[in-house]
Amino acid sequence: MKVLEWTGDRLLILDQTKLPQSEEVISCSTLEQVCEAIENLSIRGAPSLGVTAAYAVLMGAKNLNAGDEDSLLSGIDSICDRVLSTRPTAVNLFWGVEEIRKVARRSEGGGLEGILRSMEVKATAIESDNADRHRMLCAFGADLIPDGASVLHHCETGPLATVEYGSALGIIHAAHLQGKRIHAFVDETRPLLQGARLTAWELQRWEVPYTLITDSMAGHFMSRGKIDMAIVGADRIAANGDTANKIGTYSAAVLAKHHDIPFYVAAPLTSIDFDTPTGSEIEIEERHGDEVRGFGGRLWAADDATVANPAFDVTPGDLIAGIVTEAGIAEPPFKESLARLNSPAVSVA
Amino acid sequence: MKVLEWTGDRLLILDQTKLPQSEEVISCSTLEQVCEAIENLSIRGAPSLGVTAAYAVLMGAKNLNAGDEDSLLSGIDSICDRVLSTRPTAVNLFWGVEEIRKVARRSEGGGLEGILRSMEVKATAIESDNADRHRMLCAFGADLIPDGASVLHHCETGPLATVEYGSALGIIHAAHLQGKRIHAFVDETRPLLQGARLTAWELQRWEVPYTLITDSMAGHFMSRGKIDMAIVGADRIAANGDTANKIGTYSAAVLAKHHDIPFYVAAPLTSIDFDTPTGSEIEIEERHGDEVRGFGGRLWAADDATVANPAFDVTPGDLIAGIVTEAGIAEPPFKESLARLNSPAVSVA
Repeated sequence: MKVLEWTGDRLLILDQTKLPQSEEVISCSTLEQVCEAIENLSIRGAPSLGVTAAYAVLMGAKNLNAGDEDSLLSGIDSICDRVLSTRPTAVNLFWGVEEIRKVARRSEGGGLEGILRSMEVKATAIESDNADRHRMLCAFGADLIPDGASVLHHCETGPLATVEYGSALGIIHAAHLQGKRIHAFVDETRPLLQGARLTAWELQRWEVPYTLITDSMAGHFMSRGKIDMAIVGADRIAANGDTANKIGTYSAAVLAKHHDIPFYVAAPLTSIDFDTPTGSEIEIEERHGDEVRGFGGRLWAADDATVANPAFDVTPGDLIAGIVTEAGIAEPPFKESLARLNSPAVSVA
Repeated sequence: MKVLEWTGDRLLILDQTKLPQSEEVISCSTLEQVCEAIENLSIRGAPSLGVTAAYAVLMGAKNLNAGDEDSLLSGIDSICDRVLSTRPTAVNLFWGVEEIRKVARRSEGGGLEGILRSMEVKATAIESDNADRHRMLCAFGADLIPDGASVLHHCETGPLATVEYGSALGIIHAAHLQGKRIHAFVDETRPLLQGARLTAWELQRWEVPYTLITDSMAGHFMSRGKIDMAIVGADRIAANGDTANKIGTYSAAVLAKHHDIPFYVAAPLTSIDFDTPTGSEIEIEERHGDEVRGFGGRLWAADDATVANPAFDVTPGDLIAGIVTEAGIAEPPFKESLARLNSPAVSVA
């Protein structure tokens, strides 16, 4: 299951909008093709967007066929602007663009070939560093899942979102690969249905037994003793462990608390924002109302129905049993444990 | 907003499958047309089905043009079988059919005209008794809602489900008509989206301010202090107050408890099953998996995705602040308070 592949002159992207009905690969040879793939959500998920953004800038720079370093570097600035315009609120995308731009600038004086070479090395390093983080995160997390466990999952946090391995879903897969008997309960994750469209497809390919449910069913199955633990990803984690993640995560955490079910978060250290002390400082993106009025362009509510569409919610750290990272598992109180994991001595970065 | 109208020889049915995009009325002059309207979900909701079933049997009997009482009464039995086959698990439908069949049998010897006349009197009596119950229920419930309240609602419990007035949604409407400033948060109610399609449409017509949300957003808005109370309907209430209602009700009740938000149930006394001691004896209907894989015939998950689709869940009485009926509001402990409301001295029936 290769989500993204750089061939040296092309970027191959698995088109996630076509899943699960068909597995189509978009072969991009121009900057514009990559940008459109991001805009169309053919590729999505915070870590995947960071890696894609780096390759997008690299491809744009190569295609410039610039005559001198000055025109290459000024061209790269325009290319970065184009990539940044695709999904303005995606933090990882911003990060990927800036990492590759920094390398280009630092390589000034190395000649056209030298600059492009440094950029390519950096882009592939971003991809492999990303893979390393998620591989280690999955190994730590898999130990949390007992044999025979039934695990609730929200949204999509597998390789589709992270290029390789995954975070919360990757942990479920890793536990399965260890030979444990795992059953996943998959929240469909309205409004964008990442669970129904993508997570169920990944689990089916991995042959991990799962049950797809509407988000409103999780409490029912918890009350019947069918769910042993819950694990989700994170879009952004505050220094105290408060976690912003896909809308519906908070409800799942409250339900887990009510039923004494441990609720875990899994994310690489890059998702922890140590400059944000608590979740109340995290701004919640409000998305287009038609996502709630229907799905995929088809509306079942009135087209002028009053709706709210917060993309994320914030789960307070005191509902979270542990935060799984590539440097180990942080336990409450998170302010101390997260800071410890992030210290240079143990960090992977 | 007339959901159902008996003209003496036709049954006019507002086609709920066309809402909210268009308001179309199906004019039924044959038993088969009414049965198809029930089967297609053009009319739905437990109390509405009870009333519709009575008129369906009446219409079938009139159209028989039977030559004598024997052939009329045996014809009625076949008609009842046809109506009962439309939605085999709908208790109110069963009740409506049996009520009208009993009247027909009791009127034997009164002549063809006499029997049909008694049946018509009974069918209209069922309709007006149903309206009385819901009107009184709404009056009791409206007093629970303070001025300025923001109220969470799940599924659809307005006139569309009850022919007139409604239960939980009718209470919100009644409070609005009292001049109170009310804001409704409307759960879209996956998988069948009754909230998005029907409840939002009813509130919009009534000019009650509302916000349509996915089911997974209710917890988020509770955590932000945006929801003051919750009120839902009931499919069946056990003698101890445990309440079976549309899937997702239980999750909403747990979320309300976590946020110290009062959670009310509203239903006529006919929904209370005193022969069922607790909720654990209530069987949960499992519906077709394609309802979870997609909506309205369009699938977004794989067509072989493993799903669960329980139509209802059970909310234990200890999560419920009060049960609103046409005889008043029962408070915990419900075993005693519900029995008291149901005593002949205070019952409406």
